[in-house]
Amino acid sequence: MRVSQFPLFTLKEVPADAEVVSHQLMLRAGMIRRLASGLYSWMPLGLRVLRKVERIVREEMDRAGALELVMPAVQPAELWQESGRWKHYGPELLRLKDRHDREFCFGPTHEEVITDITRRELKSYRQLPVNFYQIQTKFRDEIRPRFGVMRAREFLMKDAYSFHISEASLAEGYETMFQAYTRIFQRLGLRFRSVEADSGSIGGSVSREFHVLADSGEDEILSSDGSEYAANTELASSPGPAIDTLAPADAEKCATPDTETVEAQAKMLGLALDRIVKSVVVMSDDDTPAVLFIAGDDELNLIKAARALAAEEVRLATAEEVLEATGVPKGFIGPVGLPDGLRVLVDHRAATATNFSSGANEKDQHWINLNWNRDVPLPETADLRMAKAGEPAPDGKGTLHSSRGIEVGHIFQLGRKYSEAMNATVLDENGRDQAMYMGCYGIGVSRIVAAAIEQNHDQKGIIWPAPLAPFQLLIIGIGMDRSEAVREAAEDLHDRLQQAGVEVLLDDRDARPGVKFADAELLGIPHRVVIGDRGLKEGKVEYQGRRDDESTKLDYAGIADTLLEKLRS
Amino acid sequence: MRVSQFPLFTLKEVPADAEVVSHQLMLRAGMIRRLASGLYSWMPLGLRVLRKVERIVREEMDRAGALELVMPAVQPAELWQESGRWKHYGPELLRLKDRHDREFCFGPTHEEVITDITRRELKSYRQLPVNFYQIQTKFRDEIRPRFGVMRAREFLMKDAYSFHISEASLAEGYETMFQAYTRIFQRLGLRFRSVEADSGSIGGSVSREFHVLADSGEDEILSSDGSEYAANTELASSPGPAIDTLAPADAEKCATPDTETVEAQAKMLGLALDRIVKSVVVMSDDDTPAVLFIAGDDELNLIKAARALAAEEVRLATAEEVLEATGVPKGFIGPVGLPDGLRVLVDHRAATATNFSSGANEKDQHWINLNWNRDVPLPETADLRMAKAGEPAPDGKGTLHSSRGIEVGHIFQLGRKYSEAMNATVLDENGRDQAMYMGCYGIGVSRIVAAAIEQNHDQKGIIWPAPLAPFQLLIIGIGMDRSEAVREAAEDLHDRLQQAGVEVLLDDRDARPGVKFADAELLGIPHRVVIGDRGLKEGKVEYQGRRDDESTKLDYAGIADTLLEKLRS
Repeated sequence: MRVSQFPLFTLKEVPADAEVVSHQLMLRAGMIRRLASGLYSWMPLGLRVLRKVERIVREEMDRAGALELVMPAVQPAELWQESGRWKHYGPELLRLKDRHDREFCFGPTHEEVITDITRRELKSYRQLPVNFYQIQTKFRDEIRPRFGVMRAREFLMKDAYSFHISEASLAEGYETMFQAYTRIFQRLGLRFRSVEADSGSIGGSVSREFHVLADSGEDEILSSDGSEYAANTELASSPGPAIDTLAPADAEKCATPDTETVEAQAKMLGLALDRIVKSVVVMSDDDTPAVLFIAGDDELNLIKAARALAAEEVRLATAEEVLEATGVPKGFIGPVGLPDGLRVLVDHRAATATNFSSGANEKDQHWINLNWNRDVPLPETADLRMAKAGEPAPDGKGTLHSSRGIEVGHIFQLGRKYSEAMNATVLDENGRDQAMYMGCYGIGVSRIVAAAIEQNHDQKGIIWPAPLAPFQLLIIGIGMDRSEAVREAAEDLHDRLQQAGVEVLLDDRDARPGVKFADAELLGIPHRVVIGDRGLKEGKVEYQGRRDDESTKLDYAGIADTLLEKLRS
Repeated sequence: MRVSQFPLFTLKEVPADAEVVSHQLMLRAGMIRRLASGLYSWMPLGLRVLRKVERIVREEMDRAGALELVMPAVQPAELWQESGRWKHYGPELLRLKDRHDREFCFGPTHEEVITDITRRELKSYRQLPVNFYQIQTKFRDEIRPRFGVMRAREFLMKDAYSFHISEASLAEGYETMFQAYTRIFQRLGLRFRSVEADSGSIGGSVSREFHVLADSGEDEILSSDGSEYAANTELASSPGPAIDTLAPADAEKCATPDTETVEAQAKMLGLALDRIVKSVVVMSDDDTPAVLFIAGDDELNLIKAARALAAEEVRLATAEEVLEATGVPKGFIGPVGLPDGLRVLVDHRAATATNFSSGANEKDQHWINLNWNRDVPLPETADLRMAKAGEPAPDGKGTLHSSRGIEVGHIFQLGRKYSEAMNATVLDENGRDQAMYMGCYGIGVSRIVAAAIEQNHDQKGIIWPAPLAPFQLLIIGIGMDRSEAVREAAEDLHDRLQQAGVEVLLDDRDARPGVKFADAELLGIPHRVVIGDRGLKEGKVEYQGRRDDESTKLDYAGIADTLLEKLRS
């Protein structure tokens, strides 16, 4: 391809409204153009990259036995009412009315539509398992779209949905998708990590996110240096630093005025924070209170709390709610003598405390030297604490380290949430109707392009991993308009490599060398050859890999073969 | 591919709501499923066909030098307001509001968006000509969607837009697209015709439609048996049957009571219809009247009338409007003594009439033996008549024949309608701002699939042209569950052909032969091989092409090579 036929729309200036590097570079390289807030056109250069992601995703989905289909982007409200999401989805769902005033939405996801298809088409367990996927434009009406295609309103997504007769089959299908995703991100040439994650509002229990690692990533990931363990911070586990086990001492109630905070309590009692078991009162979405006990130096993880309480979500109780639920002012609640009927959970780490201090359930009073099961029965325990970098991995192998990631994939075991709500059943082996188990599996195809740039760039521009590069090789002719020899050499090399199947771009513009070099760095094509008059006279051309600091001279004789070799390796 | 891994969703019954054959067969073959009115999911089998169309379209657009991009489906109202179409487009435009109450539409076409892109990106005539295209899901809110994907609301379209510095360059770009379209429909293996067409509301002057020929087509086409001439009936031309030239006789005014119709007039005067020049009064969209004269045996073509009058559209005047415009009651208007200032046009054929009769511009009075330029100056002439099958082609070569077609492509020379409205200019050679000339070029990708079926089917099912077939070869194993020999032979043949790159489907279901045969006819895969126990014992398998009346026996020895040969030819 020649630039004269494949125009570049590069920009010298950094666009003012682009906050993150990938957004800046995609605009500057002419990969995308903004139409309106969160709406982008993919220009020819950008589309080449997008299609590479799409192809790899498709090939691996096909290889995993998934069946490609395409469902309508516009979906009738009735289906979303059946699943219950029409009410709960919130304003991200772009709702619209057709000319007959019937309600529809521009789909951000397709659980309802695929469940509607399968409940009509699938009759028997013999037709299971099956996995349908599509690669399709979705719409999510973000309140504040930003970061270019990273958080756009219209975006390209691969969404897959699997159907199973049993939980065991779902687990197998989920594992198959896990393997497929792993291959996809490996083939894309990206550094990535799969992490345990929260399922959020989509439902289901088991889920993993795939993150492209990049310092600018929005999500924090904790991963072990001694095992495969990795999790989104919102879900990461660690036993935490060990708490010393002490010889039991006598429990004692102490006056502790003005010690609503655990720090004040520790100071007044002369105790380390991990000798304190502090209380946090939370409210579930149905306004049921629960008292949670965690170690004084730990932070409560609300997502874990919600899971442990089997609630959609929980929030911290207000001071009034604390008083109403326990009869005790905030800051003085403890495990001894709490009102009956209150839900109480103790974090695993707090459960290991000995001779600990906790509230006495009276204003300005705390116990010291409490011991579980001696002074008070140990309540139900759960993982409630935030894990932190530097702490041991939950599998006991290695230490957790923090890194940042951009979420580009998410796989879920949904269970029967949608199939039960929408009555999607098949006959099982015994001839009885049974709701199918469902998995769903997303990949943000357009988002991957931005994430790849966040991970691979320098001051000068993009540095494409080969599998994503819009072209593999850029040929720059210096002074092609003046030197017949340069023109011929450049055209000839271009034509030969193109015929050999190489994705090659020839910059044949009548532009200054500085412009061509700057664009070359910006576009980030992995390999570059510069052909100039002076070099040619010595039988040389200049080669530079995009990550190389300097160029090297190569013999012009046999240059096509030399380059083919480089491209293959 | 095996049916056990690529499930078929075939139906025995003809779905009640499917009116046309392609819709019935696409549902029955499990290619599509209805989600809501005019909204269809493309099931895996259908998607394979759709992708074939898409690939051929893409390859030929690329070959023609067009640049692929993807613009957002959702478009801001502002751009449509700039072009003036927000007001004029009508309720087919699906309008919507985002969460901030800003107005958008789900694009049925992208003239505005591409013009917005090019006015920002293109600065100089040196960057022209350029042609951008996309293959994208569009939405048109049809008042009565029907015929399945033939007239769906959501559909897949290839839309291209070219930009030029001059009309001559536009004509060249248009010709390039004409050639590309011709190659596309040739490669699709469809019988088609390109025809002159009306540009409709999209604007512009020159346009051609591409029709897939099928008896069930909505459009009538007239094409010459002696030349390449072909046109949509709404625009077809013919000089019509010659009108005899008579020796001039004296003009005479006759009383002709109760002869408002041309038939009554002819009867009373004892004249053949082609001796009468009849008047039709029409109103332009700005309510300007015009009097049109055509031969008594001809029918007025309103689209041609609009073109000749340079109006957006025209309609027949009411009796009151006729009286008001001419002062003469309907049925008695003639060319002699019409009020001044009235726009008057005479059809080319009517202009050849001699000794003709026409209204005398008085109630119940007609002239006979009028002659143009003797009794009244011949007004401006134009092509106003409907052409009919059996009439001469306008190029004088051959006779027009009627056929029916399904419109699947349309190419337009738009001119500067959008670039002027949206101020899309570049600097010309003299350094002056100049609005670009624009062409636009559409192909209904999903519609082609239905049109191909309308053209290629029989009582039993679809008959795919090879380039569109979802698979090239179907292998049916008879009693694969009972006969190890059959299973081995079928699997082995499948694996060998698949490895040789053949798109082969093996029906490995435990189903009755009748079911498999019926599905084979329904799916319409071009080649079919049946492997059964009895045949195998004789070293034979049965081969049948989808268009063959009977099967033929082939040697099982070397069957893979025999089939590869057949598939290549």
